[in-house]
Amino acid sequence: MLTKTGVTVGVDMGGTSIKALAVDGDNRILASGKISTLAHKPGQAIKDLATLVKGTVADAGLKLKQIVGVGIGAPGAVDPRRGIVHKAPNLGWIDVPLGPELRRLLRVPIVVDNDVNVGTVGEHALGAGEQAQGIVGIFVGTGIGGGIILGGQLYYGFRGSAGEIGHTVLEVDGPLCGCGRRGCVEALASRTAMERDVRAAIKAGRKSVVPQIMKERNSTRMTSGVIVRALKKRDPVMQEVMKRAEYYLGLVIANIVNILDPERVVIGGGIAERLGEDFVAPMRPTAYEHFLNQDNARSIKIVPGSLGDEAGSLGAVVLVRQRLGQTPASRGKRNRKVPPPRM
Amino acid sequence: MLTKTGVTVGVDMGGTSIKALAVDGDNRILASGKISTLAHKPGQAIKDLATLVKGTVADAGLKLKQIVGVGIGAPGAVDPRRGIVHKAPNLGWIDVPLGPELRRLLRVPIVVDNDVNVGTVGEHALGAGEQAQGIVGIFVGTGIGGGIILGGQLYYGFRGSAGEIGHTVLEVDGPLCGCGRRGCVEALASRTAMERDVRAAIKAGRKSVVPQIMKERNSTRMTSGVIVRALKKRDPVMQEVMKRAEYYLGLVIANIVNILDPERVVIGGGIAERLGEDFVAPMRPTAYEHFLNQDNARSIKIVPGSLGDEAGSLGAVVLVRQRLGQTPASRGKRNRKVPPPRM
Repeated sequence: MLTKTGVTVGVDMGGTSIKALAVDGDNRILASGKISTLAHKPGQAIKDLATLVKGTVADAGLKLKQIVGVGIGAPGAVDPRRGIVHKAPNLGWIDVPLGPELRRLLRVPIVVDNDVNVGTVGEHALGAGEQAQGIVGIFVGTGIGGGIILGGQLYYGFRGSAGEIGHTVLEVDGPLCGCGRRGCVEALASRTAMERDVRAAIKAGRKSVVPQIMKERNSTRMTSGVIVRALKKRDPVMQEVMKRAEYYLGLVIANIVNILDPERVVIGGGIAERLGEDFVAPMRPTAYEHFLNQDNARSIKIVPGSLGDEAGSLGAVVLVRQRLGQTPASRGKRNRKVPPPRM
Repeated sequence: MLTKTGVTVGVDMGGTSIKALAVDGDNRILASGKISTLAHKPGQAIKDLATLVKGTVADAGLKLKQIVGVGIGAPGAVDPRRGIVHKAPNLGWIDVPLGPELRRLLRVPIVVDNDVNVGTVGEHALGAGEQAQGIVGIFVGTGIGGGIILGGQLYYGFRGSAGEIGHTVLEVDGPLCGCGRRGCVEALASRTAMERDVRAAIKAGRKSVVPQIMKERNSTRMTSGVIVRALKKRDPVMQEVMKRAEYYLGLVIANIVNILDPERVVIGGGIAERLGEDFVAPMRPTAYEHFLNQDNARSIKIVPGSLGDEAGSLGAVVLVRQRLGQTPASRGKRNRKVPPPRM
């Protein structure tokens, strides 16, 4: 029987790992699990997911049939009604019936949504969103994703593809974006854009510690960790590139506020998780200056996410409760029975 | 007694004239009135407005007490709950209690909202919006204003200032905007921006018929009428400037669709009223190409407004009905008892 204290499993399918949390009705994390890579073939991947969920539930000392449901944030275009992943370029998935297949394997209700939507729901319900009626989540990582909550509910739009803030044009004829167009916010302020700019500066003869840090970490990409390390070493190239990205992010925050006038804007993703206020504070002057309505401008809060990389898995838990008509869990500090895994 | 067939007065406070319509419950226009200039001092202006409403009601063969209410679209920041015009730069108004004052003079319910919101409501309920659940209205004139309808209702946002699409940045460090910032859509694609670009081209030695047309019309500004005339004469400067503005408008439509994924985008304002499809058609390829979600892209319609300069006054009528809990008027072609005034 579904009770307020029922345990829900939230799964976040990230680019490099998949995390699962088993969370009770008081938002206590009972168990967590992680698999570091996902088989790209949908059939095996879904079996791996099922195994992860089963293991996490077992670690919580429960049986599958005691679980309220499983929520999943998937990286791509999702049909949340049918639980189908339409397109997930990073996984190479097209029209994968993730929800129905998992349901067949686990025999519990499955809720699937886009990872950024799910992260926004997490921050809204349990994190920096403070349960405001209207919040916009902007997640800065390899790309830039956005989630919109209006009237306390996830806003989908006509085709279900609302919130693609990363692909709004901020600079006509600007740099080429991964989507094939030019001047998108993602092409100006994502980690990918920052890496492109750092590499260009180095190629142009500037000195930077970034290549050395990447080498030390055996990383071919300029990850959030590399960025943070370079900033700690006061690398001038990294500082300049970051400053410019923060300026662009300030502008896009203002664009969103001028359009939607939300109560809060929450900045999430890897860099925000690591740098928090140091990442968001430089965006604020630009953002607030560009609000057309200057009355009570500061009443609109621009804040870093507070859930870190658990935003997605916790959001997936909340979404399951919402979809199944469970009473929303009471807010407040979560009690942890196990420490959260760190990447 | 308020009945479904009750007559409502809608007033649109435009930059150069104020129009009033008396409309019955079947959306028949019973009478219309217009005053061409408004005393800028609020006291006299409100008296003039009251006189206009009284005259329009009398022309409809009715008494004030038979009227359901009066709706007003005012050019500026409005507190719709209290009927106060916070800031109307074109009128020089600050914190004018338009609603309460008019109510005192007319003794009927008064509803006040921003002119662009009201125009969007008009197009949504009775025009090109086709009563879609989610529509965005973009009104291109001296400035660029936007109105958003979600779930069939006007969307206001946290501070009531949602929809300022004209002041989203589309070009970082772009041309100076009237708002004091740079690169806003309004600074790229409004009539004011077009006039600036035409003047610059002429100053740079290009030939254009625009100055001659303005002289013939005794106009110091490049009005919509001047633009249409210059395009009819195939003026190359006007054609180029218009083409560029339409490109920018295509981009801003895509930005809005990527964020809100509405069912429809309605383009209103003076140029759209005069050129209709000829204005909007060139925006479509740019807009559709820049939708991130290309699935069913064409299911999102991008259309010129169909109410012309009556969008505001008819929208004001609809807003009164909504606020007073009247049954929404049935849609369909309006029957006119009097021809609408044309400017």
